Amino acid sequence: MRFLSDNTGTAAPEMLAALTEANQGLAPAYGSDPWTRRLDDCLSAYFGAQVRAFPVATGTAANSLSLATLTPSYGVILAHEEAHIANDECGAPGFFTGGAQIALLQSPDGKITSRVLAEALDAQPVSVHTTQPTALALSQATELGTSYRPDELTSLCKLAHERGLKVHMDGARFANAAAFLNCHPGDITWRAGVDVLSFGATKNGALTAEAVVFFDTNLVRDFELRRKQSGHLLSKSRYFSAQLLAYVESGLWLRNARKTNTLAQKIGRAAGDMLMHPVEANEIFLALGQERKQALRKSGFEFYDWNSAASGQTRFVVSWDQREEDVGALCEALGRL
Amino acid sequence: MRFLSDNTGTAAPEMLAALTEANQGLAPAYGSDPWTRRLDDCLSAYFGAQVRAFPVATGTAANSLSLATLTPSYGVILAHEEAHIANDECGAPGFFTGGAQIALLQSPDGKITSRVLAEALDAQPVSVHTTQPTALALSQATELGTSYRPDELTSLCKLAHERGLKVHMDGARFANAAAFLNCHPGDITWRAGVDVLSFGATKNGALTAEAVVFFDTNLVRDFELRRKQSGHLLSKSRYFSAQLLAYVESGLWLRNARKTNTLAQKIGRAAGDMLMHPVEANEIFLALGQERKQALRKSGFEFYDWNSAASGQTRFVVSWDQREEDVGALCEALGRL
Amino acid sequence: MRFLSDNTGTAAPEMLAALTEANQGLAPAYGSDPWTRRLDDCLSAYFGAQVRAFPVATGTAANSLSLATLTPSYGVILAHEEAHIANDECGAPGFFTGGAQIALLQSPDGKITSRVLAEALDAQPVSVHTTQPTALALSQATELGTSYRPDELTSLCKLAHERGLKVHMDGARFANAAAFLNCHPGDITWRAGVDVLSFGATKNGALTAEAVVFFDTNLVRDFELRRKQSGHLLSKSRYFSAQLLAYVESGLWLRNARKTNTLAQKIGRAAGDMLMHPVEANEIFLALGQERKQALRKSGFEFYDWNSAASGQTRFVVSWDQREEDVGALCEALGRL
Amino acid sequence: MRFLSDNTGTAAPEMLAALTEANQGLAPAYGSDPWTRRLDDCLSAYFGAQVRAFPVATGTAANSLSLATLTPSYGVILAHEEAHIANDECGAPGFFTGGAQIALLQSPDGKITSRVLAEALDAQPVSVHTTQPTALALSQATELGTSYRPDELTSLCKLAHERGLKVHMDGARFANAAAFLNCHPGDITWRAGVDVLSFGATKNGALTAEAVVFFDTNLVRDFELRRKQSGHLLSKSRYFSAQLLAYVESGLWLRNARKTNTLAQKIGRAAGDMLMHPVEANEIFLALGQERKQALRKSGFEFYDWNSAASGQTRFVVSWDQREEDVGALCEALGRL
Repeated sequence: MRFLSDNTGTAAPEMLAALTEANQGLAPAYGSDPWTRRLDDCLSAYFGAQVRAFPVATGTAANSLSLATLTPSYGVILAHEEAHIANDECGAPGFFTGGAQIALLQSPDGKITSRVLAEALDAQPVSVHTTQPTALALSQATELGTSYRPDELTSLCKLAHERGLKVHMDGARFANAAAFLNCHPGDITWRAGVDVLSFGATKNGALTAEAVVFFDTNLVRDFELRRKQSGHLLSKSRYFSAQLLAYVESGLWLRNARKTNTLAQKIGRAAGDMLMHPVEANEIFLALGQERKQALRKSGFEFYDWNSAASGQTRFVVSWDQREEDVGALCEALGRL
Repeated sequence: MRFLSDNTGTAAPEMLAALTEANQGLAPAYGSDPWTRRLDDCLSAYFGAQVRAFPVATGTAANSLSLATLTPSYGVILAHEEAHIANDECGAPGFFTGGAQIALLQSPDGKITSRVLAEALDAQPVSVHTTQPTALALSQATELGTSYRPDELTSLCKLAHERGLKVHMDGARFANAAAFLNCHPGDITWRAGVDVLSFGATKNGALTAEAVVFFDTNLVRDFELRRKQSGHLLSKSRYFSAQLLAYVESGLWLRNARKTNTLAQKIGRAAGDMLMHPVEANEIFLALGQERKQALRKSGFEFYDWNSAASGQTRFVVSWDQREEDVGALCEALGRL
Repeated sequence: MRFLSDNTGTAAPEMLAALTEANQGLAPAYGSDPWTRRLDDCLSAYFGAQVRAFPVATGTAANSLSLATLTPSYGVILAHEEAHIANDECGAPGFFTGGAQIALLQSPDGKITSRVLAEALDAQPVSVHTTQPTALALSQATELGTSYRPDELTSLCKLAHERGLKVHMDGARFANAAAFLNCHPGDITWRAGVDVLSFGATKNGALTAEAVVFFDTNLVRDFELRRKQSGHLLSKSRYFSAQLLAYVESGLWLRNARKTNTLAQKIGRAAGDMLMHPVEANEIFLALGQERKQALRKSGFEFYDWNSAASGQTRFVVSWDQREEDVGALCEALGRL
Repeated sequence: MRFLSDNTGTAAPEMLAALTEANQGLAPAYGSDPWTRRLDDCLSAYFGAQVRAFPVATGTAANSLSLATLTPSYGVILAHEEAHIANDECGAPGFFTGGAQIALLQSPDGKITSRVLAEALDAQPVSVHTTQPTALALSQATELGTSYRPDELTSLCKLAHERGLKVHMDGARFANAAAFLNCHPGDITWRAGVDVLSFGATKNGALTAEAVVFFDTNLVRDFELRRKQSGHLLSKSRYFSAQLLAYVESGLWLRNARKTNTLAQKIGRAAGDMLMHPVEANEIFLALGQERKQALRKSGFEFYDWNSAASGQTRFVVSWDQREEDVGALCEALGRL
C-alpha cells in the first residue's frame, strides 16, 4: 500500500485517450502542431486572462526555466526553506541562472508570511557586494500540504513587487490548492499578482506534462530560447499539449484533486494529534516516532521519512489512483496506534 | 504531402501499446520503476556490451548532457560544421558545460575524416590561453543523411583518444545508420571506440524517448546529477523506458529504419543529379534551384530549404509513417522536373 | 578617523620598493617571469610543505577560483552564515561553479564547530535529488574577528574529509590569525588538513595581491585553466608576485599583523561589555546602540554598521597604517560612553 | 632581444609616480576613492562624450565582462577568426555569458568587412533553434596589427545595429590605432557607433590597468554586478584608477603609441616582401620560413611563431620600452636575410 508520492501514480484514462487522439497524421514539430497552438487559448480561458503557455516534461524544468527568466546569475531567489526548488531539484535554479542563490525563509506550515518576507528583505542592505533579490518563489499547494489563501498571496505579491521582485509559483499541486480553496484559478495566480506559474499535471493524472504559464508575457521570448537551449523544447510537442488540453478541458484536474484531497483529509482526521500540519491538499505529515513508523511499515504501508529517519516524522501522499480500501486500511491502522 | 522532418511523424502502435502496458499500478518514481530498471539489461543485450542507459525526453538533452560529462567550461568540442549540436540546439552544449565552444570542421557529405580531424588538432598549439580540446562529437547517421562506416569510426575514435579526447555520438538517427550499414549496433559504437551515445527513438516511431547510453560507465554519476539538475530526470520514467524497451525488443527500430531508408533511396534515385549527397539514411538533399522548388511546392509537397532560401538547396525527410503513395508522387514529380 | 576596513589602507613602503625592483627589463608575461617562478619556493618555505602558489588580484577571485576546483555545479559549499563568500561577493561562488549553492551554518563568534558541521551533514540524506556537499569553506581569521585554534581546524578538516568534502580556507586575514595564535603557518593550514588557501596580502599592506595556495596539488591544472578563463591570469604577473615575495620574505606579513592585532585588542579592552566577540585579529565588533553610534560619529569616527543600521551593532577595523593617536582617541571615546 | 609581446614591457615612470601619489592616507575601498571617482570625467573628456568607465586588472576581464552585458547564454558573438577573444582567452566569453558561442568571420588583414558581416548575418535564418546574434566584437588595432578606419567602423556598427547587435571593441592596443590614424579617440568609438570599449593601458606602459568604457550607459548596472560577481571589483581600486588617470592625462598613451608605431614601421620596411600585413600599430607579421626563423633566433632575437611552428609565420611586437638599438639590429638582420 504505497503512499510514497503522487509521482507513483499511473496516467488517467483521459490522458491515454488524448494521446491516441493526437496520434493522427504528420504534424509540424516543436510546437507548431494544432494541439500546442491551442494551448494558449485553453489556458487563457482556464485562468480568465490572456496567458502564454508552454509544455515541458518535468516540474524541475518548469520551475527553473521560469526562475531563469526572472533572475540573473547575481540574483537571489527568496523561498520557503521547505521549497522543492531548494531541496529536491539538485540545485537546478543555480544551474539555469548561472549561479543565483536561494535564500531560505522560515515560517510555520510551509507558508511564507508577509512579515517574514519583509524581515528577510530588510535584514541586509543590498549593494554591489551582495546578491540581488529578484524573485519570490511560492509553492501552491506548499511542500507541507497547506494552501495559501488568495489574500495571503495578494499581500506577498504586492510586497514583492514593491521591492522589485517578480513572483513565481510552483504549482506542481496547483489543482489540489484550487480544489481545497474552492476558488477560481485566477484568484490564486494573476489576480493575486503571480507573474509566472509552473502548472503541474503529472502528479495529478498525466503521464508527463507540465505547463509554464506566463501572466507577464514580456518574459516569453527569453523563456523560449532558454527552453530550447536547455533541451526542453519537445519535438513532438503534440503529445504533451494534448495531455494538458484534456487535463483542463475534461475537468480531470478538478475531479482528481477533489478525490485526493478528500482522501487525504480522511487520513488527517484519523491521525489525530500526530498530524503536523493542516491538510489542505493531498499530503499528510505525521509525527509518528520510530515505533509507530515501524508498526505501520510492518503492516505493509509505504511512506517516506520526512527530514531524516531520526526525526520520526513522515509524509504520506495520496495519488489520484490510490485504492480507497488502502486509504481505509491506513485510517484504521492510524486509529489503532 | 509532408517531407519536413521525421519529427512530424506519429507514434507507432507498438509505442502506445507499451504505454498502456506500463500504466499498471503505483510504481516508484524517478527511475526506480521496473521498466527503467530493466533498461540497462535491454540495451546491454542490444549493443553486446555492458552499458548504462538513461531515458531523457529530447535529443538536445541527450546530446548536451553527454557532452557536459566530457567537457569542462574551458573545453572545446570538435564537430562537423553541419552538426545538430552546432546549428540546431540554440547553443545547448555551451549552456550545459558552462561555456565550452564548438570548433567546426569542414569536410564533404557531413562526415569528418581522420585527416580533417588531425589537421584541426594540429592547427593551433594548446596552452593555458586556448580552449582545451576534450571531445569529438560525431553524428550517425550524419546531418546530411550519410553514414560512417565502422572503420571510419574506428580511425576517428583512435585518433581522438590518442589526443585525450572522448567521443560522443549523436544517434538521433542511429537506427537508420545501422540499418543502412546492415551491421551490429556494437560495430558502430563501443567496438569503434565511442564513449557515449545519444540513442534516438523519437524520430523513428516513439512518442518521445531518447536514451543516453554510456559505454564508459565512469561518467555515470556525474551524468545522473547533471540530468537531475537540468530538469531531465523524469518523475514517471516508466513511460519513457517502456517506449525504449518496446522500441528495441519488438524490432521496431529496425523495421522502421529499413522502411524509411528504402523510401529515401527511391526518392534519391528519382532525383538523379539533383542529389547532393549519397542517401545512406532517411534524408535526401536536393539542389533544386528556385523554379523547381516552387513547382514542387505548388504540387503540394512540403520540405525545408537547406542553409537559406537563396541557396536553392532543400531537404526531404521520410517519416516511418510516411504514406508510400506520397513517396511515389514525389518520385514522379522529381522525374518530371 | 577611519576604521571602516583594512581595504582603506595604503600600500606599505616594502610593496612599492618591490614594484620598483621588479620594474627592470623585458620579462616574459603570464607568469613566466622570474618573480612568479620563485613564488612556489617562497611559499613552500613559508608553509613548510611543497605547495603551488598563484597570484590573483582580488580575494573574491582567490576564493571562487579555489572553490570552483572543489565543487561542481550541483555541489553545495558549507560555510558559516557570516562568511564573506556568502554575503560579500555578489554570489561569486555560484557564478564560478555554474550554480553551486552555499549552505549557511550558524554558530557563535563566526566559528563553525565540529558538532554544527556534523549536524548539518546529517540533517538531510544526500540523493540524486539534492545538491551534493563537496566543500567546507572556513575563514581564518573569521568574519567576526576570531581565530580557529589548530586543533579546531584539525577536527573540522578530518570530519570534512571523512564525508568526502575538500576544505578551502579564506585567508584574507590569514596573517592576523597566525600572529594572534603565534603559530607556524603550516599549523593552521596543511597540517590541519586544509586543501586550498586564499592567502591575502591586500588587507595587510599590499597594493593588490592575493595568492591561491594549493596544498592538494592535483587541483592545479583545473585551476590554471579556470583562472585564465575568468580573466584572472595577469599578463604582467611580476608586479603581483613581487609584492607577495616581499610580503613574506621581508616579514611584513607578521609585522603588520602584530601591529593591527595589538591596536585592535586595545580598542577591545576599552569597549568593555559592548564587545560582541573576542578580539583575535584586527576587527572589533561593538554593540553600541543608536545613541552611542551617533555620538561616536559626531566625534569624527567612521565605522560600519553591522548587519543593519537598526541593529545598533558596528564593526571597527584597524589598518596596518592606522594612526596610533586615532586608536588612542577611539579608546578614550569608548571609555567615556 | 625580446620582441615577444608588449606584455613583456615594464611600467613607465609615470605609472610608478602615479602609484606613489595615490599612496596617501586611508581611502574608501571598492571604487569610492577620489581617483576612481574622477575616472568618468577624465575619460569623458578624452572621448568627448559622457561615458562611464571602470578599472579592471586584465584585458580578458574587460572583454568578457563587456560582452556579457551584451549577450545572453543563447547568444552568438560575431568576431574575426583571429580575434583575441576567440583564440587567446581560454573561452572566457563562453564562461562569462554562461554559454554563448563565437562565430568566426574570415577576411584579410584581421579586419571584418561590412560585406563579410552582412553575409554572415544572412547565411542562416535565425530561429528558436539557433543561437541568436547579439554582439559584434571588433579589435582596434586588430590582432594582425592593422587598424580600422573611422568610416569602416561606422559602416560595421550601422549594419550591426540595424540587425539588433550591439558593438564591443577590444582596445587592448587602442592607443596604437588612434596614433596611427591620427584621429580623435571619439572618431573610432562612439562617433562610429561603438557601445562598449575595452580600453587597454597595460600593453602600452601601465603595470596593470584596463578600463571598461561604456558609451551606452544603460549597460552599467548589469556590468557592475557582473564585475563584482566575477571577482573583478578591486578593493584598492585607487591604484588602478591612478594609473589610468596618469596614462590619459599625462599624454603617455600617445607618446608611447607613437614611439612603438614608428619602430614597428621601421621593422616593417626592413622586412620587404616578407611582410604579411600593413603595419598600422606596433605589431609586425613576417612570413620568414623555417631557415630565416632559425637564423634570426640564433642571432638572439626572440619572437613568436604565428599559427603554428610549421607555418613559418612569425609575430614581432614592439614594447614601449624596447631598446632602439635592438630595433636597429633587427632591421639590419632582416635586411641581410
